[in-house]
Amino acid sequence: MSKINQIRNYIAQHQSRLAIISDPVTVNYLTGFDCDPHERQLFLFVYSDNEPILFVPELEAARARQVVSFEVIGYQDAENPWQKIRLSLPRIDSKFIFVEFDHLNVTKFNGLQSVFLGRFENLTPYVQEMRLIKSTDEINKMLVAGVYADYAVKVGFDNIRAGRTEMDLVAQIEFELKKKGISQMSFDTLVLTGNNAANPHGIPGKNPIENNALLLFDLGVVCEGYTSDMTRTVAVGRPDQFKEDIYKLCLEAQLTAQDFIKPGVTASEVDAAARKVIEKAGYGEYFNHRLGHGLGMDVHEYPSIMAGNDLVIQEGMCFSVEPGIYIPGRVGVRIEDCGYITKTGFNPLTQTPKKLQYFEL
Amino acid sequence: MSKINQIRNYIAQHQSRLAIISDPVTVNYLTGFDCDPHERQLFLFVYSDNEPILFVPELEAARARQVVSFEVIGYQDAENPWQKIRLSLPRIDSKFIFVEFDHLNVTKFNGLQSVFLGRFENLTPYVQEMRLIKSTDEINKMLVAGVYADYAVKVGFDNIRAGRTEMDLVAQIEFELKKKGISQMSFDTLVLTGNNAANPHGIPGKNPIENNALLLFDLGVVCEGYTSDMTRTVAVGRPDQFKEDIYKLCLEAQLTAQDFIKPGVTASEVDAAARKVIEKAGYGEYFNHRLGHGLGMDVHEYPSIMAGNDLVIQEGMCFSVEPGIYIPGRVGVRIEDCGYITKTGFNPLTQTPKKLQYFEL
Repeated sequence: MSKINQIRNYIAQHQSRLAIISDPVTVNYLTGFDCDPHERQLFLFVYSDNEPILFVPELEAARARQVVSFEVIGYQDAENPWQKIRLSLPRIDSKFIFVEFDHLNVTKFNGLQSVFLGRFENLTPYVQEMRLIKSTDEINKMLVAGVYADYAVKVGFDNIRAGRTEMDLVAQIEFELKKKGISQMSFDTLVLTGNNAANPHGIPGKNPIENNALLLFDLGVVCEGYTSDMTRTVAVGRPDQFKEDIYKLCLEAQLTAQDFIKPGVTASEVDAAARKVIEKAGYGEYFNHRLGHGLGMDVHEYPSIMAGNDLVIQEGMCFSVEPGIYIPGRVGVRIEDCGYITKTGFNPLTQTPKKLQYFEL
Repeated sequence: MSKINQIRNYIAQHQSRLAIISDPVTVNYLTGFDCDPHERQLFLFVYSDNEPILFVPELEAARARQVVSFEVIGYQDAENPWQKIRLSLPRIDSKFIFVEFDHLNVTKFNGLQSVFLGRFENLTPYVQEMRLIKSTDEINKMLVAGVYADYAVKVGFDNIRAGRTEMDLVAQIEFELKKKGISQMSFDTLVLTGNNAANPHGIPGKNPIENNALLLFDLGVVCEGYTSDMTRTVAVGRPDQFKEDIYKLCLEAQLTAQDFIKPGVTASEVDAAARKVIEKAGYGEYFNHRLGHGLGMDVHEYPSIMAGNDLVIQEGMCFSVEPGIYIPGRVGVRIEDCGYITKTGFNPLTQTPKKLQYFEL
């Protein structure tokens, strides 16, 4: 069944004749039309018993018509989009109307409520559930995005030199990827040296790569609409024994969680598998974030791999396993692979070795 | 008066004791704390008669405390943020509570409504109004962001060579900027050749730079939290007379609008000044977007320079003037400067010449 038909069935089962999709990523997921309307309006109207209608800024209408086979309605910047929706869409009576609560802002919500009379219900959980289990085709795209992430960290490793800054390495990595046709990173590439890596949300700057320290790379790409995300921490020169020990501990936690994962365990148990390793060694307070997050067309999507989440892991899910230990002023380590779940467990989407690698300045 | 005190006064005047800021850009505007929480929660609680409180993911708390002088509350991934807000914030009685309708999604709106009893009112228009008029300090930052945009197009011009693709030029531009410490572009850099430029929202790809055609650059940077945005279209080889004529027409429209702008005219009149030039020549249908948009900490912010917007232009406003003419299969031109308004009119923030420039492959 097509993804749009899944939505149609779902709303029909819930006494609704209309779902309004507003998240551009969901629109892309359902239709293949990739468009960020910024402050303009983009809506996919999915009817239980009519063809869908895509409502886009006029600027995007020609491109949209090349992608989708159903009706596309464009609106001009100077037109009132709510009025245009009212005048150009079929009038339907629907007791409930499904919209994406996690995406729709209050202004748009009010705009749509000025047009449609039904009670607005939340479609986000169902869309999350649909997107949660990836098809073979989706996993194949994520494997390709993973190959580019592996390439990206290799570019980073190859450019570790005395005098280079964090931003120099970021620049080189993104340059080499753009030359390969990757137009978009999943997020701003992180290259963090020494104490900056000890901040779990450090920002790359003009810090030169430190010697006898750890160096952290966290990056990913978007490729055919699907994302990758990985983190590697490497040694530059000879970090002291304490830093090496913290690295080994983080790696043990990462591998323990990966090995633990199989269909049937819960997200909370997966988080605990890694966390216990770090807590047992006495560093629990320095692992101050969840173990992982889902990814797919968004680099952060449902589910969270964390305490309190009783979601049962199933085949086809894709998520990150990324313990980190951040001791301010001393050391920061994070090691991350994303993977997809099969009967046998967790299959990493990135292949760069995780045994501590050493580089010389 | 500090920006936070402006908010306090505003809400006090509207029988409210609490505003909840959720847009990370507004948080940065009011506090100097720059943080994208992604799917996590970030709120600035501004009280009419108490010190503000910043609520952030625990990951960001240490950094936040370095930036702001008031209380910062962090929450862990596994904590319920709404419960944490309920338990850790002072209990206040407020008839109305102001939130940003243009930013807050329905899920967050419902989350906040589960904690606060007052009626939720829209703070977006007031924040837009505050951000609309830039201070000298803000304009100075935007001038610096403009200098980098000029540098970026120069890098692009210097790299026009046979065999290079659109993406090659994008890669080179962003590489040179990152080497200068610019970590973020305002948006994905556009380099569009020939027919791809004839699509107002074309996407750079592996198209080699065409000879005897026009080549369009649309880009900007983020620098100290402020954005730039500019578009230049140049000639590669010898484009035919028709393409040159369309370029001249677009430039005439751009300059006509720039010259027309002064305090007292309306946004709608500014749009019309450019549009009339293009309409008179018979190409009105190919200029299918508004003339411009505000910019500041966001690259697209209030106001829209378009038909129907009766906003009166005032000193301190900053916005783009960017007419475009897109004739599918034949030619695409857009010319854009952003500028700030003084008594005497429109002062461009970017200086790259606009007379048609010629490059050889």
